[in-house]
Amino acid sequence: MPSEHTIAALRAFVEARDWDQFHSPENLAKSIAIEASELLECYQWTSTPDQTRVEEELADVVTYCIHLANKLGVDLDEIVMRKLDSTAKKYPVELAKGRMTKYTELHAEDGV
Amino acid sequence: MPSEHTIAALRAFVEARDWDQFHSPENLAKSIAIEASELLECYQWTSTPDQTRVEEELADVVTYCIHLANKLGVDLDEIVMRKLDSTAKKYPVELAKGRMTKYTELHAEDGV
Amino acid sequence: MPSEHTIAALRAFVEARDWDQFHSPENLAKSIAIEASELLECYQWTSTPDQTRVEEELADVVTYCIHLANKLGVDLDEIVMRKLDSTAKKYPVELAKGRMTKYTELHAEDGV
Amino acid sequence: MPSEHTIAALRAFVEARDWDQFHSPENLAKSIAIEASELLECYQWTSTPDQTRVEEELADVVTYCIHLANKLGVDLDEIVMRKLDSTAKKYPVELAKGRMTKYTELHAEDGV
Repeated sequence: MPSEHTIAALRAFVEARDWDQFHSPENLAKSIAIEASELLECYQWTSTPDQTRVEEELADVVTYCIHLANKLGVDLDEIVMRKLDSTAKKYPVELAKGRMTKYTELHAEDGV
Repeated sequence: MPSEHTIAALRAFVEARDWDQFHSPENLAKSIAIEASELLECYQWTSTPDQTRVEEELADVVTYCIHLANKLGVDLDEIVMRKLDSTAKKYPVELAKGRMTKYTELHAEDGV
Repeated sequence: MPSEHTIAALRAFVEARDWDQFHSPENLAKSIAIEASELLECYQWTSTPDQTRVEEELADVVTYCIHLANKLGVDLDEIVMRKLDSTAKKYPVELAKGRMTKYTELHAEDGV
Repeated sequence: MPSEHTIAALRAFVEARDWDQFHSPENLAKSIAIEASELLECYQWTSTPDQTRVEEELADVVTYCIHLANKLGVDLDEIVMRKLDSTAKKYPVELAKGRMTKYTELHAEDGV
């Protein structure tokens, strides 16, 4: 993930504009945070924002995530699946079911 | 994007924990912003952070992006490609090449 | 704002640890965003978080704002009041009363 | 902090527009994060942005911090000073001098 086609299109876009020089991992991390906040802005005063605007802002976040993954040489599917494994261990079904307690407190609460 | 396997695994994870009730689009948008900031935190005082930590934080951002895309019923590849088209128009190669000027100023600067 | 006492205490804290070298405006801007997200995290899954935790995270945001204001050589009261003047013009009472419409759409909507 | 004058002006601004209904602590926390990201955006591609723009974005962050402090019934100077006390304990001068190591690792590293 994403598709080879999407990755290639994003690379070509950056290359044509000679923007790779600006895409340091740090700048991309800032950009992800900035776009994530623009996505949040859709929900600043309402919980039912315009769907088109939400899709555009979500696309911006993911676009920079793809750029950063390329820079780091990692595959997004792979790191998402790896993180899911470790999260699943932190939040075992029997303890986490139906509640959003942070894992550090989850175990303490239950005397585990 | 992401792969069917990843989407299925994330859905099963949420379902097993009965967490769908917490995953309103608004809460997911907040979560994306929060995780994006944790990714940024890797770069708070250094431009060369630990790669493993960066991968984990990036994975968290993308995980919530996938959850939100599912909620909205959109495909990430599709919205990324659609946004790329509109960004390409805002930043034509001949004007944007080699510089990071916001598109609103890009055209003004060049008298376009 | 803040009080002379607070400003002096923050300066002494940084000086004693020789941390001024890390406090570039850019690093402080990142830090403000990171701490703002930790504040947001209090509200990630609930609208009634623990007050003590909220106070601590808000304090972190403001602390870095004070550091940045010092770096920039500006007084927070002054820039807040100046910005309030310009915001008041963008959101005239008769148009903005009782609704959170962005000022760019506020005027369009009303045919102003 | 801030001055009584600033607090009164912000309150009057909100009251005149009947915006208090939108200023839930959660919405204010989102707003602080959103404005903090706009401040960060000044530094997205450069470390020397326009000072006026930086001042305006910083003012927005602090404005929402003042609104939230009012909502919570806390004094910003007080919570900043209280947090400084606890941070000073986490980062003792002899361990933290000249380096930005997180306090959890600071002590471990030094065998304390």
